[in-house]
Amino acid sequence: MTKVVIVGVGLIGGSFALGLKAAGAAGHIVGLGRSAQALARARELGIIDEAATSPQEAMRGADLVLLAAPVAQTGAILASLLPHLEPQTIVTDAGSTKSDVVAAARAALGDRVHQFVPGHPIAGRESNGPDAAIPDLYRGKKTVLAPLPENAAEAVEKVAAAWRTCGAIIHMLTPQEHDKVFAAVSHLPHLLAYALVDDIANKPHADLLFQYAASGFRDFTRIAGSSPEMWRDISLANRDALLGELDAYLAQLTHLRARLAASDGPALEATYANAQRARRAWTEAIEAAEKPPAPDQESGK
Amino acid sequence: MTKVVIVGVGLIGGSFALGLKAAGAAGHIVGLGRSAQALARARELGIIDEAATSPQEAMRGADLVLLAAPVAQTGAILASLLPHLEPQTIVTDAGSTKSDVVAAARAALGDRVHQFVPGHPIAGRESNGPDAAIPDLYRGKKTVLAPLPENAAEAVEKVAAAWRTCGAIIHMLTPQEHDKVFAAVSHLPHLLAYALVDDIANKPHADLLFQYAASGFRDFTRIAGSSPEMWRDISLANRDALLGELDAYLAQLTHLRARLAASDGPALEATYANAQRARRAWTEAIEAAEKPPAPDQESGK
Repeated sequence: MTKVVIVGVGLIGGSFALGLKAAGAAGHIVGLGRSAQALARARELGIIDEAATSPQEAMRGADLVLLAAPVAQTGAILASLLPHLEPQTIVTDAGSTKSDVVAAARAALGDRVHQFVPGHPIAGRESNGPDAAIPDLYRGKKTVLAPLPENAAEAVEKVAAAWRTCGAIIHMLTPQEHDKVFAAVSHLPHLLAYALVDDIANKPHADLLFQYAASGFRDFTRIAGSSPEMWRDISLANRDALLGELDAYLAQLTHLRARLAASDGPALEATYANAQRARRAWTEAIEAAEKPPAPDQESGK
Repeated sequence: MTKVVIVGVGLIGGSFALGLKAAGAAGHIVGLGRSAQALARARELGIIDEAATSPQEAMRGADLVLLAAPVAQTGAILASLLPHLEPQTIVTDAGSTKSDVVAAARAALGDRVHQFVPGHPIAGRESNGPDAAIPDLYRGKKTVLAPLPENAAEAVEKVAAAWRTCGAIIHMLTPQEHDKVFAAVSHLPHLLAYALVDDIANKPHADLLFQYAASGFRDFTRIAGSSPEMWRDISLANRDALLGELDAYLAQLTHLRARLAASDGPALEATYANAQRARRAWTEAIEAAEKPPAPDQESGK
């Protein structure tokens, strides 16, 4: 019987547990975390079978452990698990940054770091906590694994298999590649959205401005509704890659500002058109990937 | 019998026509425009009753004219209408910028400018053309009117009444106020979204980046799917206000970059939290405004 430990039974950890349960793939799921209230609620909702009161209890005979707590806590959590880490146990995580998680894992686990396989499921919802957890959160979504040179192939496969059971598609990146990619397509947009709303909110006529903000503004700033604590941690954890992307974007904006100041219509239109084209190609590729394959009407031919 | 002329029978003009028709408020709707194909399609869809072949024919006996063509064409269109502009006819527009429209109207109409009431319905959809037009597009949405000192109160009221018939709520701003407000909450976000997608699309590893872009990126960049020609025109038409907002935003980003470079967690969190708070207050205010009033359970008391 497989024993799975979830550290942090919120949206991410809870949905992983529910996905495994829905597939009948988890023998016994144990929750561990700082919030006794969240653990009790997760138990009530049938997300976990047992709320552990100590790492020692939770880790006894564990096959797989998922850390689904804020990335800044990774080192402290791993340090608390280490004394109880049995040889067969594989630990993974769900953090939005990977280089810092790897550094924390190396520092905390030392030569046991081969038992830690870094990961990042690319899925989320606007709501949080155990009540937000759903079994289908990862279905059809990517989970990035960023294995360490120390990881055995079997360890990586154990983690990949669990995510596949939840319906996720496994992608492999190095921690550095991961952080550079997500700095560009996730961390920078969050910073830009927060910055815009904060900028507007601080203007003396903010009320007038918000009164006329419409659906375009709502979509553009949706990610500024995300948890400030979580995104502070992500920004700091991925600081160098994020600074690099921010500098590239500032250079782009400065260039575009000069074109606008010069009333250079063709240059503005070329930038806008390139963006529209690239975005359309991207959304079409997503839609094609999400569409079920057409039935084969000439099977056998 | 009221005669309404729609110049540009796409999403905006077509939905205005359908809104009036749905309320039984338009006796006869005439379409005018550069595209014979769009006019024929609008006729086929029952958006207009007649496709005019000349401004002269369209303007004969007209009560109300809506310009729903790209703002850069306003001057040329008004000049073509002027020789046929009867004393009872009121002309309005649906352009996303107002200072430039007012300047074009003054130049084209001279002392007949009192017959032109500038306007801007705050509504849209991702699709365009007559096929995208729907009678409910403006229901519950704001329409900003930016009247001129020369406009008679009756002229303004005629335009306001037509928009109210389509279900819109009338707001009044000066052209300058209008342009400053929309530079901040609409034009700048469009420029930022276009700039981000263009920036990513031009990187050598763009394909890798787009592969990991998820729902947050999709929402943030949705407005970069808008028409490049239209947004080139809006950017140029509202250049000065847009430059002002862009400079404020660049200063904000530069400040935030310094905080990030200094790993100043509390400052980042304060900015993010202020944005989250302001956005939540805004969305709650919108939802409250859109919710029908609770039934009065103690009427008479």
